[in-house]
Amino acid sequence: MTPKIAKIITVVDSFDTHAHIPQQFDAVNAAAKEGNNIAVMSTGWDPGLFSIARIYANAALPNGTDYTFWGRGVSQGHSDAIRRIPGVKDARQYTVPIEAAVERVRNGEDPVLSTREKHLRECYVVAEDGADLDAIREAIVTMPNYFSDNDTTVEFITEEELLRDHAGLPHGGSVIRSGSTGWNNEYRDTIEFSLKLDSNPFFTGSVMVSCARAAYRMHEEGLTGCKTMFDIPPAYLSPLSGEELRAHLL
Amino acid sequence: MTPKIAKIITVVDSFDTHAHIPQQFDAVNAAAKEGNNIAVMSTGWDPGLFSIARIYANAALPNGTDYTFWGRGVSQGHSDAIRRIPGVKDARQYTVPIEAAVERVRNGEDPVLSTREKHLRECYVVAEDGADLDAIREAIVTMPNYFSDNDTTVEFITEEELLRDHAGLPHGGSVIRSGSTGWNNEYRDTIEFSLKLDSNPFFTGSVMVSCARAAYRMHEEGLTGCKTMFDIPPAYLSPLSGEELRAHLL
Repeated sequence: MTPKIAKIITVVDSFDTHAHIPQQFDAVNAAAKEGNNIAVMSTGWDPGLFSIARIYANAALPNGTDYTFWGRGVSQGHSDAIRRIPGVKDARQYTVPIEAAVERVRNGEDPVLSTREKHLRECYVVAEDGADLDAIREAIVTMPNYFSDNDTTVEFITEEELLRDHAGLPHGGSVIRSGSTGWNNEYRDTIEFSLKLDSNPFFTGSVMVSCARAAYRMHEEGLTGCKTMFDIPPAYLSPLSGEELRAHLL
Repeated sequence: MTPKIAKIITVVDSFDTHAHIPQQFDAVNAAAKEGNNIAVMSTGWDPGLFSIARIYANAALPNGTDYTFWGRGVSQGHSDAIRRIPGVKDARQYTVPIEAAVERVRNGEDPVLSTREKHLRECYVVAEDGADLDAIREAIVTMPNYFSDNDTTVEFITEEELLRDHAGLPHGGSVIRSGSTGWNNEYRDTIEFSLKLDSNPFFTGSVMVSCARAAYRMHEEGLTGCKTMFDIPPAYLSPLSGEELRAHLL
């Protein structure tokens, strides 16, 4: 919707289909310029604060490797994918980082990690009465792009259990850059940014509000077009003045 | 020196006396404007990337508490303070975060922590021949602002041991913001940014280089005056183009 809205008013979105960001950026940019508006796209935490962690870590440590681990948390996209399988009434999917892999990265080992070596997928599924549970399990663990490249567990539970034990939408994860400095790259450095969120939607909304402050300020300056968090000076996200920021947060 | 240099050329510094940043900013800003230059001050990691972590975390989570833990690492200021004591030939001071306090913060307990509850100070001291070791120890542990508010250990070692075991300047630490979202603040969130650096000076220099890219770009745009990392769009720190950043890091 953002290209349509950006023609009319200033807008902040959380567009998160990473592969389509470049073409979406062009469409939003043209629309926002046409409407003399600012559009801040792909805000939240990934894309969003995780992207910010990646750009600062890459700028500070050009010689290194990026790793992103998600979870433990509910992936809404993977939960939806399960719900589309015939015989499934409801489902929750937790993305679980493999702690041994995270530790190897934190220790500066620079491992090459396959998809399977980075995350487990835990599925809690409520089946329709009389559904073929083995067929559902097989449909999940072999699903390409979503589950077939991970070790995936499937547990069938009742609707009551799902509502009681899996009602929340917690999430989080870590962006880690591991690299080196020194005349001969003899010094190892690790930069890590991590989030632990009880509510993914509330936190995402909170980051979007901070971007609305920036959108207002950029528009007041006469800027138009599409921006990402990469284009926004951090001070624009804060309710504090430059003087307050330098005195208290610098 | 920065106010003098900023009159002549574009400059990036790592001014780190937090209490004097506001007055220094004014002096550097006036000088840089007079010389039609950009001056980026207080870059590095604290102030610098830690400040950046604080401003994003505060913008995203307005209702919360900030914590900064330093170390384990060598504090050059505290090492110098020990070297100024009569009878001391050389010294290294390690700032050590108290892991139990860090864990309480990570768990979202929002503890009120005294200086003593956050960090230990470990001192390795080479004494002059015949120096009064008890007097040196007493002078260290009672030194106001530097050691008297922390639990401080003092170990006397030989010059050979110091050069063999304590030649490096590793450092690091964590900025943690713990807060809440939700209609009734019922969701707890934790945001953490941490660094583990084999060489504090090499990493600081590397962050300064990224700010030099930004200084060049801001100057090309016709901007002048003093900037901090709060004022710099993250994209300006990167050697990559906007298109590359959106395609690969967003």
